[in-house]
Amino acid sequence: FSLVRVKSTWKSKLGKKINKDTVDCVSAAKSYESITDRGTSWTVVSPITFTYKVTETHGLLDPSNDTLLLGHITDPQQLEDIRKSNKPIRRFVVIDQEVFQIYGPKLTDYLEANNVVYKIMPLPTTEENKSMETALKILEDVNNFALDRRTEPIIAIGGGVCMDIVGLAASLYRRRTPYIRVPTTLLSYIDASVGAKTGVNFANCKNKLGAYIPPAAAFLDLSFIQSVPRRHISNGLAEMLKMALMKHRGLFELLEEHGCMLLDTKFQADNTLYGHDSIKAASQATRIAITTMLEELAPNLWEDDLNRLVDFGHLISPALEMKVLPTLLHGEAVNIDMSYMVYVSHESGLLTEEEKQRIISCMVGLELPVWHEEFTMELIQKSLQDRLKHSGGLVRMPLPVGLGQA
Amino acid sequence: FSLVRVKSTWKSKLGKKINKDTVDCVSAAKSYESITDRGTSWTVVSPITFTYKVTETHGLLDPSNDTLLLGHITDPQQLEDIRKSNKPIRRFVVIDQEVFQIYGPKLTDYLEANNVVYKIMPLPTTEENKSMETALKILEDVNNFALDRRTEPIIAIGGGVCMDIVGLAASLYRRRTPYIRVPTTLLSYIDASVGAKTGVNFANCKNKLGAYIPPAAAFLDLSFIQSVPRRHISNGLAEMLKMALMKHRGLFELLEEHGCMLLDTKFQADNTLYGHDSIKAASQATRIAITTMLEELAPNLWEDDLNRLVDFGHLISPALEMKVLPTLLHGEAVNIDMSYMVYVSHESGLLTEEEKQRIISCMVGLELPVWHEEFTMELIQKSLQDRLKHSGGLVRMPLPVGLGQA
Repeated sequence: FSLVRVKSTWKSKLGKKINKDTVDCVSAAKSYESITDRGTSWTVVSPITFTYKVTETHGLLDPSNDTLLLGHITDPQQLEDIRKSNKPIRRFVVIDQEVFQIYGPKLTDYLEANNVVYKIMPLPTTEENKSMETALKILEDVNNFALDRRTEPIIAIGGGVCMDIVGLAASLYRRRTPYIRVPTTLLSYIDASVGAKTGVNFANCKNKLGAYIPPAAAFLDLSFIQSVPRRHISNGLAEMLKMALMKHRGLFELLEEHGCMLLDTKFQADNTLYGHDSIKAASQATRIAITTMLEELAPNLWEDDLNRLVDFGHLISPALEMKVLPTLLHGEAVNIDMSYMVYVSHESGLLTEEEKQRIISCMVGLELPVWHEEFTMELIQKSLQDRLKHSGGLVRMPLPVGLGQA
Repeated sequence: FSLVRVKSTWKSKLGKKINKDTVDCVSAAKSYESITDRGTSWTVVSPITFTYKVTETHGLLDPSNDTLLLGHITDPQQLEDIRKSNKPIRRFVVIDQEVFQIYGPKLTDYLEANNVVYKIMPLPTTEENKSMETALKILEDVNNFALDRRTEPIIAIGGGVCMDIVGLAASLYRRRTPYIRVPTTLLSYIDASVGAKTGVNFANCKNKLGAYIPPAAAFLDLSFIQSVPRRHISNGLAEMLKMALMKHRGLFELLEEHGCMLLDTKFQADNTLYGHDSIKAASQATRIAITTMLEELAPNLWEDDLNRLVDFGHLISPALEMKVLPTLLHGEAVNIDMSYMVYVSHESGLLTEEEKQRIISCMVGLELPVWHEEFTMELIQKSLQDRLKHSGGLVRMPLPVGLGQA
C-alpha cells in the first residue's frame, strides 16, 4: 500500500497509480499486508531523514555572530521571523567545567548581549563521569528549565565526552530534542562533531548505552583549540592521521611535513614564527579530516554496514583505554592500535618497509605513543573475540595498503 | 555531492552524473558544501529506513510455532541458515510478573522444547515502575547475558508499560538492539504494538524520556486476552473507539453493536453463547484498529507532523492519568478526554445531538467512564497551555466531525 493524505486523514491505497489531484500528500512510507493460515502480517517500511550541519566559523562567542543561536535553522523564513521577533531566545547550555573556567565570562557576555534567557550547567565531563547518572542530572535541569523541544536546542560545549553525554540526554528528552555541538578540543573538532553517535559508559564498557542521533548542527571554531594542552593536540592529530592513512595521502604528507608546526601553533593563525603557512596547513588539515570523515559517516549513519574505515585504530584500543584509565587519552590509545595494525599490514605484505617506517615516524613526530605495555597479545585476542561476537561472525579489520589507501 | 563506494572507500562525487560501472554502490545520502566569509559549512542529508512487522498468529507459545523465535527475520536465506544450524538460539525475555504467573510454565516449556539458551526476567511493569532505573536494571541483566545485538533480539511480553520500558532499554543497548513486542493486554495489542514509541516516566511526567525506535516485530496472539480482567478489556476498547471515531464508521458501528459481546467473550473464539459471531466481530475489530493505526503512524513515525489523529483523547488525559494515579487506567483517562471532546465538537456545531448521544451511549456500553471529578477546567487549561508550549505555538486538537470522520 501507498499511504496518502486526504484532508487530515491518512489512507492506504493499493497499487502504484495515485491520482495526485485527489490527495494532499503521498508519504515515502509504505505498508505491505500478507495473509497466511495463522493470521495477517503487516510490514511497515518508513524512512526517516536526518539533516545536520557542520559549520566552521570564526568568533563563535563574538556577540555579533549569531551562529551559536541561529546557525542550525535551515528555513530562511523561520530565521527571519526569529530575528524580527521581540521574544527573547531561550537556551540551555551544558559546558565542560574546565572549559567554563576559561570561556565562562565570554559565554555569559555573549548570551547577555543577545538578550538570551539561559541556564548554563558546568559539568566535569570526564570518561569516569560519562554515565547515565550524569545524563539524568542534565535532564533534571533541562526539565526544570521548562525547555521547549521544538525551538530550543540544547547546546553542548566541550570535548567528545561532553558532546556524547549531552547528545544522549537530548535524544532521550521528549523522545528527541535537538542539540548543538561546540567542540573545544581538536579531537572532538574533527571526530565527535562530525558524526551521529551519542553515548555513555555502562558496566565498565565504553559507550555501551547510546543512540545514533546526529546534532542539529556542529559549530566549529578553531580559536578554542588555543587553550588545549599540547598533549591533547597530539590526541586530536591521531584521529586525523587515521583518516589520512585510510583515505587521503595528501593529508598524510601534510601531517608528516607540518605535524610539528601544527603542534607548536595549536592550529592558530596569529603565529609570528610560522606566519601564513601555519593557518594554511591548519585549515587544510581540518578541512580534509572533516570531509573524509563525513564521506564515511553520511552513507552509514546508523552503522548498518559493518565495513567501516573509521574503525581503524578502534579494534583493540577501547579495551586498552578502559583498562589503563585515565593513563591514555582516546587518541593515544587509538594510535597504539594503529601502529600495531601498521605492523600487521606490513607483516601481511600490504605495506612496504618504507611505508611502515614513514607512518611510524609520522606518529612519533606527532608526539603520539606507538606502544603500551598493557597492549598485550592477551588483550588483542580478547578484543578480537569480543568483536567477532558482535560482528555477525566476521571480524572486520580495516588495514592500510599504502599511504592513504585501505 | 553524491556519495559512492569504490572498493571499500566512500567518495564524494559532484553533480548528478555517476558512471554506475565504476562504482560499487551509490548511497541515498547526500552532502552539500557552502563556503562563506566565516568558513565552510557542510550539510548532511541521510535517510534511515525502519522496517518492522506486525504479525497476528495463533498459539504463539505452542512449541511447534517458531514465530516468537524467528518471525522477525525477513531474509529467507538467513531463516534457512538458522533452521539448519545446530547452534542453539539465545533469547533474553522480559515479562511482566503478573503475566509470568499465568504463562511462565508455558513460556519455559516453549523455550526448552526449542532448545533455546534463555534468561527470563519477570518484572513489575506498572506505571509507578516505568523509570530509567527499571530500564537500567534490565540492561545490567542483558549485559550479563552477553547478548549479541546482531542476532538476539530482546523479547518483551506484557502490556504497554512493559513494551515501552524494554523498547527503550533495547534501543539504548549498544546504540540499538532489536526487540520484539508480545502484547498480552487488549490495549497494547492494538496500540503500543503497532507504533514506534518507547519511553519511561521522568520528573512525574508520562513518557518524558524515550525514543522513536520501532520493534523488529510485534507478534499478536488474541489468546492472551482471555486472562485479561473485564475492566482492562474496556480499557483497550477505548483506544479502538478512538480509531473508530477518527477514521472508521464501520468500526464504530461494530463497537456500538457488539461492544458488550466483545467484553463478555474477551475476544475469544470458543464461546458457546455467541458462537461464530464472536470471533468474527473480534477479528474484524482488531484488524480495523490495527490497519487504521498503522495508516496514521507509518507516514509519521517520528511525529514530525504535529497534526495527529491518534492524539485524539490524549490532550488532557495524560495529566489526568498522572494526577489520579493509579485510579484510572490509560484507556479510561483517554475515554474521559474523548467524551469531553465530543461535547466540544457538539458545542462547536461539528457533531449533531444524535451523533453525540450515540457516541456517549457507545462509551457507556463499553463500560468506560465518561467523566471524572478531577477532570476540571483548571486541568484542561493547564494541559492546553502545556501543549501549546510544545506544539510550535498552535494547539492541534483532533475533533470528530461525524461518526468516523475527523
